[in-house]
Amino acid sequence: MNAEDLIMISVDDHVVEPPSLFDAHIPDRYRDRAPRVRRTKDGADVWTFNGATIPNIGLNAVAGRPKEEYGIEPTAFDEIRPGTYDIDERVKDMNAGGILASMNFPSFPGFSGRVFSAADDKDLALAVLRAYNDWHVDEWAGTHPGRIIPMALPVLWDAEECAREVRRVAAKGCHSITFTENPATLGYPSFHNEYWDPLWRAVCDENVVVSIHLGSSGRLSVTAPDAPIDVMITLQPMNICQAAADLLWSRVIKKFPGIRFALSEGGTGWIPYFLDRVDRTYDMHHLWTGQDFGGRLPSEVFREHFLTCFISDPVGVRLRHDIGIGNIAWECDYPHSDSSWPHAPEELAEVAAGVPDDELNRITHENAMRWYSFDPFAHRSREDSTVGALRAEAAGHDVSIRSYDKGRFEKSVGIEMGRLSGQATA
Amino acid sequence: MNAEDLIMISVDDHVVEPPSLFDAHIPDRYRDRAPRVRRTKDGADVWTFNGATIPNIGLNAVAGRPKEEYGIEPTAFDEIRPGTYDIDERVKDMNAGGILASMNFPSFPGFSGRVFSAADDKDLALAVLRAYNDWHVDEWAGTHPGRIIPMALPVLWDAEECAREVRRVAAKGCHSITFTENPATLGYPSFHNEYWDPLWRAVCDENVVVSIHLGSSGRLSVTAPDAPIDVMITLQPMNICQAAADLLWSRVIKKFPGIRFALSEGGTGWIPYFLDRVDRTYDMHHLWTGQDFGGRLPSEVFREHFLTCFISDPVGVRLRHDIGIGNIAWECDYPHSDSSWPHAPEELAEVAAGVPDDELNRITHENAMRWYSFDPFAHRSREDSTVGALRAEAAGHDVSIRSYDKGRFEKSVGIEMGRLSGQATA
Repeated sequence: MNAEDLIMISVDDHVVEPPSLFDAHIPDRYRDRAPRVRRTKDGADVWTFNGATIPNIGLNAVAGRPKEEYGIEPTAFDEIRPGTYDIDERVKDMNAGGILASMNFPSFPGFSGRVFSAADDKDLALAVLRAYNDWHVDEWAGTHPGRIIPMALPVLWDAEECAREVRRVAAKGCHSITFTENPATLGYPSFHNEYWDPLWRAVCDENVVVSIHLGSSGRLSVTAPDAPIDVMITLQPMNICQAAADLLWSRVIKKFPGIRFALSEGGTGWIPYFLDRVDRTYDMHHLWTGQDFGGRLPSEVFREHFLTCFISDPVGVRLRHDIGIGNIAWECDYPHSDSSWPHAPEELAEVAAGVPDDELNRITHENAMRWYSFDPFAHRSREDSTVGALRAEAAGHDVSIRSYDKGRFEKSVGIEMGRLSGQATA
Repeated sequence: MNAEDLIMISVDDHVVEPPSLFDAHIPDRYRDRAPRVRRTKDGADVWTFNGATIPNIGLNAVAGRPKEEYGIEPTAFDEIRPGTYDIDERVKDMNAGGILASMNFPSFPGFSGRVFSAADDKDLALAVLRAYNDWHVDEWAGTHPGRIIPMALPVLWDAEECAREVRRVAAKGCHSITFTENPATLGYPSFHNEYWDPLWRAVCDENVVVSIHLGSSGRLSVTAPDAPIDVMITLQPMNICQAAADLLWSRVIKKFPGIRFALSEGGTGWIPYFLDRVDRTYDMHHLWTGQDFGGRLPSEVFREHFLTCFISDPVGVRLRHDIGIGNIAWECDYPHSDSSWPHAPEELAEVAAGVPDDELNRITHENAMRWYSFDPFAHRSREDSTVGALRAEAAGHDVSIRSYDKGRFEKSVGIEMGRLSGQATA
């Protein structure tokens, strides 16, 4: 299929939260203590909440920037594309990139909202979290119907409360929550603890996908403080196999047959090996470890419960039938540094050359629609949803970005992972 | 190729050290303080050294045992196959399994000898380590020439001394040292530190492969203490991608162009995805991270420096040309629980159906011979080296094992990872 004829829904992009986020959504009695943006003396814009300061890392908002200027320095709103934090501008950027619809993970709260969870005052934490979810569902996703797949943050510190929040946002049409790769490493009960059962019951009842983004365990893939940062960048996607294995062998899958997880930004090329590995592990060991999937193989069980996705993954495309043609979605990763925006359609068309149209349609948009109970065609015809049609609407939209002011940042070439500690983790 | 016609060299098996190991090799002045075996009141045989007690885990010596009896309990020598610790019996087991030659990683010292390194008296530690290496090279590998690929333990606490030891054993024909996935997690300088340069210089000079076994970082892939043990079993091979990334992006590869590493028991099916990932990481990020391979791609560099291996890996076999047909070796993993001994040739023949003979020969033995500078055909003709010929020599050899005495062990079904802490790690 030609790039211009694709219909593309991305199941993994990111919103950089605008300073006005809480204005219309936080109850008055918490307004003074809600997260807010301030400008540092270095000229960066940072969020402050509960005594913590959280910068927006440059590398996480590089859309439009030349690669020579990538880096981990904190940035300011006027140094990044408005499409990262302004929904009208975002839709223009999506059009320019040929993207029909997009699911957006959070930035400053962390992928599972742990910045909010850290507040000792749990009433405050819950008010802030609900305000965030209302903003995300009603405002960010609601302004341009059919363009944003709504997604909510979880209440990590209280599974019953989390279940209530899932039901609350589901009533507004939100069928995705972002969750952590590993609650145990964040200091909460593990996936193997019954603590989370109320949440799992709620997501099953409400047809909500638990979307687990790489890097959400609170542990970066850091081999050593003096390792080059390239090591961590390489390892992050495969690291999500830990969450996949943790959940696949857990009681959760067995007790909640309707539960569904998405391995967000996890890539796909490693999945066929992983599925062989779990089946071999089952074959060699289940007689003494006691694993029992009712006579089925773990690889079969995986395909019922896990959605995978890729940005551009030649091996995953070749092995798509080993993964499961219904288990693969596409992602853009705008505005992060792994993204090929605005040229992602051309990149995908090249990687997927020779894939039959019906299979490619499943990967580019149909699987995302089905897993996330999302129907953009209720708002826009298929004909108007192709890459070519969307780009025609964006004619003249500038996709470049102003270069950093010279000298504002020290050059970060050759950076080691030790410099990242406590900074880029989400 | 039929299973009986294969010629099989395994690059990853294990020796369970016999109680007499040090008798002929430790200098008299250290004899009293050398590691020794004692019987516990529970009926297990354990090694003691430097105040530590190290059991032989049942799961690591299950060759011949029915899967219902697998478990992590400590065992005794009379409960495991003599082939695990007696070289004459080992060769009979190899013959019965159709295995021409085998490289054997250590058991009780840990994969990188950290049990020895832990001794405060470094003169004692060095004497013990040298005795071990002399035993392994002269006795274990030397008794049946052409059947065992010799391998030495490293001196972790002194890179200069380690280089001397590499040169000393290389003079005896040993072209492999076993090393850790990550020296930093063991408390030593990381792969990125110049500390190790004398060692890298020695292995390049002496044509020695640095063989890195999964699980040698001192960190198990434990997601949570209450996770089922199946999670860890699944994850261990892919976890070695951390070492691969750590080394590939390091200065070691750039400064020592002749250096070679083996990713032992790491599997292969994930490698094509990994290579795409490192090339994409290079493409997207090298302009700001400063990585420079002299114009080449990291995937090309990987194929010059890394040997991979598999037990039975259908995905790896299909993608063998993406991995590199010269970069794949076969392993048996005798006597561990992932092994299919004595039926491994049949398993491989099935997985490799359709692979041309010349490619299969590289995987089954030619790559192992070339990487490890090892020539079994100096001692035995090709015709006498096939699976069929070796098995004919083993006619009548019993490959079963006596069942555990009933009640000696509590049943370990449903075991959680927390029970493993400090026990199965190597």
